[in-house]
Amino acid sequence: MKAAVLNQYDLKLERPEFVVYKDVPEPKIESLFDVIVRVGGAGVCRTDLHVIEGLWRDRVPVQLPYIMGHENAGWIEAVGAGVTGVKVGDPVICHPLLSHGETLAARRGNDMHAGGAFPGIDSNGGYAELLKTAERALIKLPRTLAPKDVAPYADAGLTAYHAVKKAAAHLLPGDCAVAIGAGGLGHIGIQVLKALCAADVIVVDRSEAALKLARECGATHTVRADGNEVDAVLALTGGAGAQAVIDFVGEGAAVANGLKMTCNAGYYYIVGYGGKVEIATMEMIVTEKTIVGNLVGTYSDLVELMALADRGLVNLTTREYRLSEANTALQDLKNGQIKGRAVLIP
Amino acid sequence: MKAAVLNQYDLKLERPEFVVYKDVPEPKIESLFDVIVRVGGAGVCRTDLHVIEGLWRDRVPVQLPYIMGHENAGWIEAVGAGVTGVKVGDPVICHPLLSHGETLAARRGNDMHAGGAFPGIDSNGGYAELLKTAERALIKLPRTLAPKDVAPYADAGLTAYHAVKKAAAHLLPGDCAVAIGAGGLGHIGIQVLKALCAADVIVVDRSEAALKLARECGATHTVRADGNEVDAVLALTGGAGAQAVIDFVGEGAAVANGLKMTCNAGYYYIVGYGGKVEIATMEMIVTEKTIVGNLVGTYSDLVELMALADRGLVNLTTREYRLSEANTALQDLKNGQIKGRAVLIP
Amino acid sequence: MKAAVLNQYDLKLERPEFVVYKDVPEPKIESLFDVIVRVGGAGVCRTDLHVIEGLWRDRVPVQLPYIMGHENAGWIEAVGAGVTGVKVGDPVICHPLLSHGETLAARRGNDMHAGGAFPGIDSNGGYAELLKTAERALIKLPRTLAPKDVAPYADAGLTAYHAVKKAAAHLLPGDCAVAIGAGGLGHIGIQVLKALCAADVIVVDRSEAALKLARECGATHTVRADGNEVDAVLALTGGAGAQAVIDFVGEGAAVANGLKMTCNAGYYYIVGYGGKVEIATMEMIVTEKTIVGNLVGTYSDLVELMALADRGLVNLTTREYRLSEANTALQDLKNGQIKGRAVLIP
Amino acid sequence: MKAAVLNQYDLKLERPEFVVYKDVPEPKIESLFDVIVRVGGAGVCRTDLHVIEGLWRDRVPVQLPYIMGHENAGWIEAVGAGVTGVKVGDPVICHPLLSHGETLAARRGNDMHAGGAFPGIDSNGGYAELLKTAERALIKLPRTLAPKDVAPYADAGLTAYHAVKKAAAHLLPGDCAVAIGAGGLGHIGIQVLKALCAADVIVVDRSEAALKLARECGATHTVRADGNEVDAVLALTGGAGAQAVIDFVGEGAAVANGLKMTCNAGYYYIVGYGGKVEIATMEMIVTEKTIVGNLVGTYSDLVELMALADRGLVNLTTREYRLSEANTALQDLKNGQIKGRAVLIP
Repeated sequence: MKAAVLNQYDLKLERPEFVVYKDVPEPKIESLFDVIVRVGGAGVCRTDLHVIEGLWRDRVPVQLPYIMGHENAGWIEAVGAGVTGVKVGDPVICHPLLSHGETLAARRGNDMHAGGAFPGIDSNGGYAELLKTAERALIKLPRTLAPKDVAPYADAGLTAYHAVKKAAAHLLPGDCAVAIGAGGLGHIGIQVLKALCAADVIVVDRSEAALKLARECGATHTVRADGNEVDAVLALTGGAGAQAVIDFVGEGAAVANGLKMTCNAGYYYIVGYGGKVEIATMEMIVTEKTIVGNLVGTYSDLVELMALADRGLVNLTTREYRLSEANTALQDLKNGQIKGRAVLIP
Repeated sequence: MKAAVLNQYDLKLERPEFVVYKDVPEPKIESLFDVIVRVGGAGVCRTDLHVIEGLWRDRVPVQLPYIMGHENAGWIEAVGAGVTGVKVGDPVICHPLLSHGETLAARRGNDMHAGGAFPGIDSNGGYAELLKTAERALIKLPRTLAPKDVAPYADAGLTAYHAVKKAAAHLLPGDCAVAIGAGGLGHIGIQVLKALCAADVIVVDRSEAALKLARECGATHTVRADGNEVDAVLALTGGAGAQAVIDFVGEGAAVANGLKMTCNAGYYYIVGYGGKVEIATMEMIVTEKTIVGNLVGTYSDLVELMALADRGLVNLTTREYRLSEANTALQDLKNGQIKGRAVLIP
Repeated sequence: MKAAVLNQYDLKLERPEFVVYKDVPEPKIESLFDVIVRVGGAGVCRTDLHVIEGLWRDRVPVQLPYIMGHENAGWIEAVGAGVTGVKVGDPVICHPLLSHGETLAARRGNDMHAGGAFPGIDSNGGYAELLKTAERALIKLPRTLAPKDVAPYADAGLTAYHAVKKAAAHLLPGDCAVAIGAGGLGHIGIQVLKALCAADVIVVDRSEAALKLARECGATHTVRADGNEVDAVLALTGGAGAQAVIDFVGEGAAVANGLKMTCNAGYYYIVGYGGKVEIATMEMIVTEKTIVGNLVGTYSDLVELMALADRGLVNLTTREYRLSEANTALQDLKNGQIKGRAVLIP
Repeated sequence: MKAAVLNQYDLKLERPEFVVYKDVPEPKIESLFDVIVRVGGAGVCRTDLHVIEGLWRDRVPVQLPYIMGHENAGWIEAVGAGVTGVKVGDPVICHPLLSHGETLAARRGNDMHAGGAFPGIDSNGGYAELLKTAERALIKLPRTLAPKDVAPYADAGLTAYHAVKKAAAHLLPGDCAVAIGAGGLGHIGIQVLKALCAADVIVVDRSEAALKLARECGATHTVRADGNEVDAVLALTGGAGAQAVIDFVGEGAAVANGLKMTCNAGYYYIVGYGGKVEIATMEMIVTEKTIVGNLVGTYSDLVELMALADRGLVNLTTREYRLSEANTALQDLKNGQIKGRAVLIP
C-alpha cells in the first residue's frame, strides 16, 4: 500500500520534505480483536510536527522509519476472529488509543489511563491506505457523517471535547470561558463550549482569520493576541478574569498569559503544549487557581462528540490534501496557513 | 492592652526580636456587626514568618506597626448593636476572614473569595489581649473545646481541612495520599485524611520527630525527606505515584518532588508556599495531572472541622507560650523546633 | 394601596371570585434590612390555586385575609437603615424567600433551606402595589430587562432552572431529557435545558398549543399526552427511556408515567405537585432510578437565570392582566387557557 | 458435582426444604472468556428467599430447576482459551454480574447497567461445588483473605458499599447517617460508612443482637425499632433528621419511617426491597428530598471494598454452614437467627 513515511527527525523543522510517500507492506490481522481500517481521512496534527521535531522521541519507544497519523476514520477492511461489534464495510472513526479493557482505569471509564498502543505515535498510523487498530477503539459512524469529514474528531476534536467537558461542568451562566487559539482544536472547542454550557466565550488568537472562524463558531468576543490580550480579557471580565481558560496553544506567551486571564478560584486547562508553566506557590494559594492537564479523551467522550456532530452542534472546518501531498499539509500547518484542520485523503 | 507588635520587616529573619511586647490602645466596636474577642489563644504560623520577611508587603495594604496573629479563639468581650448570634462570654473560634456576606461568592458558600479584612494580615490580629472581628466570622465552641486548645484550627487546621476535603472527594479505598510536611498544618491534615476517607497515607518530612508525630496521627507509611523521598514514595505505590499529594511545605525541593510523586491523572495540592511550580506543558498533558491552589477554607469548612475536633477525630498537638514570649515562639518555629503548633496565651 | 386579597379558602375552586380587589394599608419598613418594592409585575402561579384550595393551610402559619403573589419584580420604593446594596428607584427582581443569612445552610449557599419568610405564601405578597421584602432577596435588573417582563422568573423560572440545573449536570450529548408540561414552568425549563446542555429534549403535554410553544422553545420532539405518551417516549429513546425526566405537572398520571419514562440509572425530577409517588422498592433497586424533589431555587440560581435572560438564552411568554383582573387570571390558569405565564400589572 | 437445587417456588416460604442437595452435571468451559471456579464459599442472601417466594420469577428468564447463589468466592478450576488475567489455582471473588464490556455503560464504568448474565439469579449459581463465571467478573484475592471469609462481599458487601459510597460523597463532619437494618448488608454498611466519612452513624434494628453487632461495627448511636424509631432518630438529630438514610430493609414500616427520618434536602437510599414507596409529590418538593435506588455495585466498587477488607477496615461477621445444610441456613435467615451473614461451605 501507499504511505507517507517518516524516516528521520528534523529538530528544527527546516527540511521541505518531512515524510516520504512510498510503497510499504500492508498491516495484517495478528490477534483476535485486531481490525484493519481502510483510511478515509487522516488528520494532520501539530503533534505530528512535534514528533518530527523529536519531542516525543524519548517518551515513546517507536523506531524510525514509521508512519505518523493518529487521527483517523475509514471503513472496516478486515477483522480478527474475536471481533463481533463491527463488520467489513462499516464506516468508523478510530479512538486513537488501543486501551487495555481489563485494567482498573478502563473498568472505571478512564480509557486514556488504560495503557495500550497509540497508532501514529508509538506504532504505524493513518498516513497510509490501511491502518491496524482494535475493536475496542472503534465507533460506527451514523449515515450523516463521512470518514474524511470527521477524521479530525478522533484526536483534535476529542482532545478539545475532553478539556471543555471538564470546564463546562463548573461554568455557570454569567461566567466566562477563554479559548486561547482558534485553530484545529480551538475551533472545535469553541463550538463544544457553546453546546455544553451557557458561559460567554472569549477567543484569543494572533490571526484575524482564526478570529473570524471563532466568531462563526459562536465566540461571544474575540481578542487579537497582540501583546495586550491579558488586559483585553480582564477588561471584558470586569477585571476579574475568566472562570475557565482553555489553552489550545500551551507554548510561548500563552501559558503565562492564560494563567493571568484566569480569575481567582478559576481553572486553567492545558491542551496545547511545547511551553512551560512557571508560577509561585504563593500566587497559587492566594488566587486558589487550579491548573489542569488534559490527555486526549475517553472512548465515551468520542461517542458524545459524535452525537454532537450528528446533531450539527459541532462542525469541522477542514482542508483536504492527497496523502501524496502530506508534506504540503505539514508545511502549511507549520506556517499557520490552515483554517481549521488539514486532512489527508488517500 | 498588651500586644506583640511588628514594627519593621526583617527580610532575612536575622534579628532575635521580631516583635515588641508593649501596651497599645484597645480595639473598639465601630459598626453594627463588630465583635471584640478576648483572646484565649493565638496560633503562630509560618505565614507570620513570611510576613516578617516582607513576602506579603506588596500583596496587602497593611502599614507597620501592626499586630500579627490570624489564628484566634477566645471569649466574646463586646458586641455591636446588630449582633444577635453570639453574646458576651461565649467561647468562640474566629474564622480568619471577615467576608462580605452579600457578594455572589459568599451567597454560593465561597467565603474565601468574598473579600473582606483578614485580621493579623491586613489589620490588627490576635497577638494581643483583645481582637476586633465580626459576627459572620464566629463559631461558638462546644463545651468540650477550650479556646487555647483550638486556636490553631482557625487557620492551620482550616487550611489543612480545606485542601484535604478536596482530595478526599476523589480518594478511593486502595488509593494513596501523600502529605509533605507533618508540622502545624500537616499533623492536622493527616488526621483529617484518616477521618474523611480510607486512602493509605504516606507522610514525608525531614524530621524524625515530625514523622513520629505523623505515625501517632495515623500515617500508614512515613518517609524521611533525605533526597530519596520520590523513589521511596514511588516504591510504596507500585511505581505509579499517589492519587493525591498534599504539599504543606510548598518551597524548596518539595514542589518538584511533590509533582513527581503524583500519579498520572492525579492531583497535587499546594498548601505551603514560598517556592515555585515549574513544569513543561507537555509533561502536564502526557500525565494529565492537576495542580490545585488552596486558600484557607470557608466558614462551613471550619464548622465541619470543629465537628471533627468535638468528636475527637482530630487532635491538636500544641506548645504554649506566653504572649510576652512571642519572639521565642517565632524563633522556635523558624528553627524547626516545634512539634505541632505554637500557641500564644495572653 | 390596592391589593387583591384572599379572604377565604375555596377547596374545590368553584367560586368565580377567589380574591377581592380593595384598599389595604401599605407595608412599612420595620427593621434594618427591610425593603419596600413598588410591584412592576406579579406572576400568577399554580401554587396560588393550591393555596386557594387550602393545600398549604396546614403547612404554613398564614392567617386569612392575606395577599398572595410570590413571584415579583419592581422598583425600590424605600429601604431600611442597614440597606447598602440597593437604592430607591433601582429595578429589581425578588427572590421569593427572605432567607436567614447566618444559618449554616445559607453559609453553604443553600438559601432555600435557610428558613425565613416567603411573602405571598406565609405573609403578604405581590398581588398589590407595594411589597415588603428584604435586601438579601434582591437582584438588580440589567437595563435589558423590565420588571413586568421578568417577574415570572422569580418563582416559575427559578424553580425550573433549579431542577434543570441538577439534570444538566449529568445529561451528556446523546442523552435525552423529557419535560412533562410546557406551561409556565415548563416553557422556561425547556429553554434552560437547551442552554445548559446538549441533550435531546422531548416535551410531553396534553395541549397542542403548549406543544407548539415547546417547539418554539427548542424541543427536539413533542409528544401529545393522550394516554400513549409512555410508549411514545420509549419509542423515541430506543426503548430505554430518558436519562432525565423533569415533571412540571406532578399530579394525575404524570407521576407514574414520568417514572416509566425514566431509563435505568436515570433521574426523575419532581417540580409540579398535587399527586403521589407510588413505586415498589424492588422496582427502585432493579432499575436504580433516583427520584429528586425540587424546592424553588437559591439566590445564585436566580442570578444565573437572569444572566440567561439578559443574553436572550431564555425568553418568557407572558400574558398581562391588570391587578384588578386577578380573578380572571386565576380562572384562566385553572382552565388551562394561558400560554406561558400570567402576570399581574398594578 | 454436588449442588443445592431449587426445584419449585414456595410463595409463602412454608416448606422446611426449599432446595434439594444432590448430584448435578458439572459446568463446562464453552467460550473464550469462560472461567470455572471451585466454590470456597457462597453467601446466603435475603434475595434467595425472595427468589423462592417467586418475586423474581417474572423479572428474569430462569427455568426451574436451577442453582441459586450469587455471592461467591473460590479458586480458579479451569479457564477459556482467551483468559489471560487469572490462572488455575488463583483465589478469587466473583463479581455477580457477567457484564458486557463493549457496551457504552461498561465503557463509562457502570458495569451494573452493562447487561449480562447474573449467575444464581438468571442462571446456575454458587450453591454448588463449581460455578461458571467469566474473566471480567473476577478479582484476585490478596493473601490476607480466604474465599469462604469474603464470599458475602460479592453481593451483600458490594451492595452496601455501592449505596454507602453515594452517601459518603455528600456526608460532611457533623452530619448524620441512619442505617436501617444491621444484618448481612447493614453490618458491612456501617463499617463502610465509618471508613469513608466522618458522619455520625445511627443504626435502627428490631433485634438487640443486631444492635450489639452494630455497636461493634462502630455505630455512634443505636435505636431499637419498636415503633418509636422515627421520634428517636429525630431526637438524636436535633429534630431535623439525618442527611442520609440507608435502608437495608426496604419493606414493612421501614420505607415510610426511613423517609421521615430523612432531613430536608437529605437522601433516602433504598437497598433492601419487598415494600413500597408512597409519598406525596408536595411532600417531596417542600422537603426537597431525594430517593435513590441502588443496584448491587460495579466491578471497581468491589475492588475498593476488597481494599477495605485487606486493610481490616471492614470485617465480616459470618456463620458457616455446609452446602448440604443449605436449607438450615435459609430457614435461619428467614427466622432472623443469623448474626451477620450465612455462608455455605462445600
